[in-house]
Amino acid sequence: MKRIAYFQFCPVLADPTANRAIVAGTLEGVEADLIVLPELAFTGYSMTDRKTASALAEDPANSPSLELLTGLCRSGDYHIVAGFTERAGDKLYNSAVLVGPGGLVGMYRKIHLFGFESELFDPGPEPPAVYDIGGLNVGMMVCFDWFFPETARLLALSGTDVIAHPSNLVLDWCQKSMVTRCLENNLFAVTANRYGSEARGGKELTFTGGSQITAPRGKILVSAGSAADALEIIEIDPDTARDKNVTAVNHLLDDRKPKLYKGLM
Amino acid sequence: MKRIAYFQFCPVLADPTANRAIVAGTLEGVEADLIVLPELAFTGYSMTDRKTASALAEDPANSPSLELLTGLCRSGDYHIVAGFTERAGDKLYNSAVLVGPGGLVGMYRKIHLFGFESELFDPGPEPPAVYDIGGLNVGMMVCFDWFFPETARLLALSGTDVIAHPSNLVLDWCQKSMVTRCLENNLFAVTANRYGSEARGGKELTFTGGSQITAPRGKILVSAGSAADALEIIEIDPDTARDKNVTAVNHLLDDRKPKLYKGLM
Repeated sequence: MKRIAYFQFCPVLADPTANRAIVAGTLEGVEADLIVLPELAFTGYSMTDRKTASALAEDPANSPSLELLTGLCRSGDYHIVAGFTERAGDKLYNSAVLVGPGGLVGMYRKIHLFGFESELFDPGPEPPAVYDIGGLNVGMMVCFDWFFPETARLLALSGTDVIAHPSNLVLDWCQKSMVTRCLENNLFAVTANRYGSEARGGKELTFTGGSQITAPRGKILVSAGSAADALEIIEIDPDTARDKNVTAVNHLLDDRKPKLYKGLM
Repeated sequence: MKRIAYFQFCPVLADPTANRAIVAGTLEGVEADLIVLPELAFTGYSMTDRKTASALAEDPANSPSLELLTGLCRSGDYHIVAGFTERAGDKLYNSAVLVGPGGLVGMYRKIHLFGFESELFDPGPEPPAVYDIGGLNVGMMVCFDWFFPETARLLALSGTDVIAHPSNLVLDWCQKSMVTRCLENNLFAVTANRYGSEARGGKELTFTGGSQITAPRGKILVSAGSAADALEIIEIDPDTARDKNVTAVNHLLDDRKPKLYKGLM
């Protein structure tokens, strides 16, 4: 059995120090195996322009946020997935990092950028990968990636047990659709959303909270309110995500017909 | 504007004559553009074995059921999609036929067979195609095809406005998931399910009704009860399925990253 969790909070825009304090203050002493934080957890979302984003972004090789997460993972003996504003040379990515007691384990750079994100970030150049953290296979996708069934499908085909899904959702579609994502792929998903509002270019963006842990067969295990901090830890059996049989003779991956799917490419 | 409809009924097992009478009795005089009937509408579902299915199946070139549908379409000036038990040489398919006033327009043979269907039928050898019926682009999938996001995605990529979806559903997952299918692909779907029970091999199968017309953005326009005949006609604007913009800068098809989707194949 493994304990998977989300921590929903309201990051302070452009104040990584404050956000690290929020994360440290909540995650110290938590007993879990995997804790998922929202998208862009340390910078907030509505950065004015690429230059501002670049100044706030961190290089994973020299990152106070990764140092904090590593320290937390070491003392708590758990792993964290966090949305991460990444600078890599002259590239900027809306990334998710998987961190454990030994430091950075893996990374995913958001493929499907939403709205003005493409003014700030480069699209991720690689499909999501899967990482085994002590018997739990963790894949990552970020927020709007959920809209594209291809993302979760790629993760399922790579053996993901749990999709860690840092998010900054502003629409109310995702949570219902994660039921379908977890049904069609028979896996767990931890959608860690943020709440609160930010202004950018005279427009107010309100994030919808409602973080959710969804299980194989599309069962919602827990969900958070729309406007408050929420830390929820759920015990799961990863094996239930590895049995891909829908019926005695139907297997949701083996029954696929890739030769007929050429139109997808 | 176009009028799309489902006719939910309870086919009589192994009695095509009775089922043609039910269809004729209801569809005569209906004013619509497209009417969708359930899967295997003229034979029922729980055929004992392949030999029985073969005896009940029809060759489209010589088919009383297609003749009936063509006559109905001619007098009503509409099109019908119906689940069709098809014999093609020594092959048997769980098919859907698209019929208009001029006869058979198009066909789809179910790719993803469910449960004991693989004892009766050969899997369809081709991906679904799309047919323009007077300004409405109709694609077909059959029942369990819904479970695989690839099916509806292929149809969307081919320009489908409306997925005609003949079904014999026995589980309750599909209707909720069609919300996601119509959201992620921004199109209409007419899920025409059957109701009633059939026995096979000592087991009782109960079909769940709940036929549903779902719209772009995942809106449910109408749904039927679980155990009664239901004919429902809804007026739609096909153009709403052709605008694939999710936001001012996000397009749900153009934002796909096929080069990163190689793992799907």
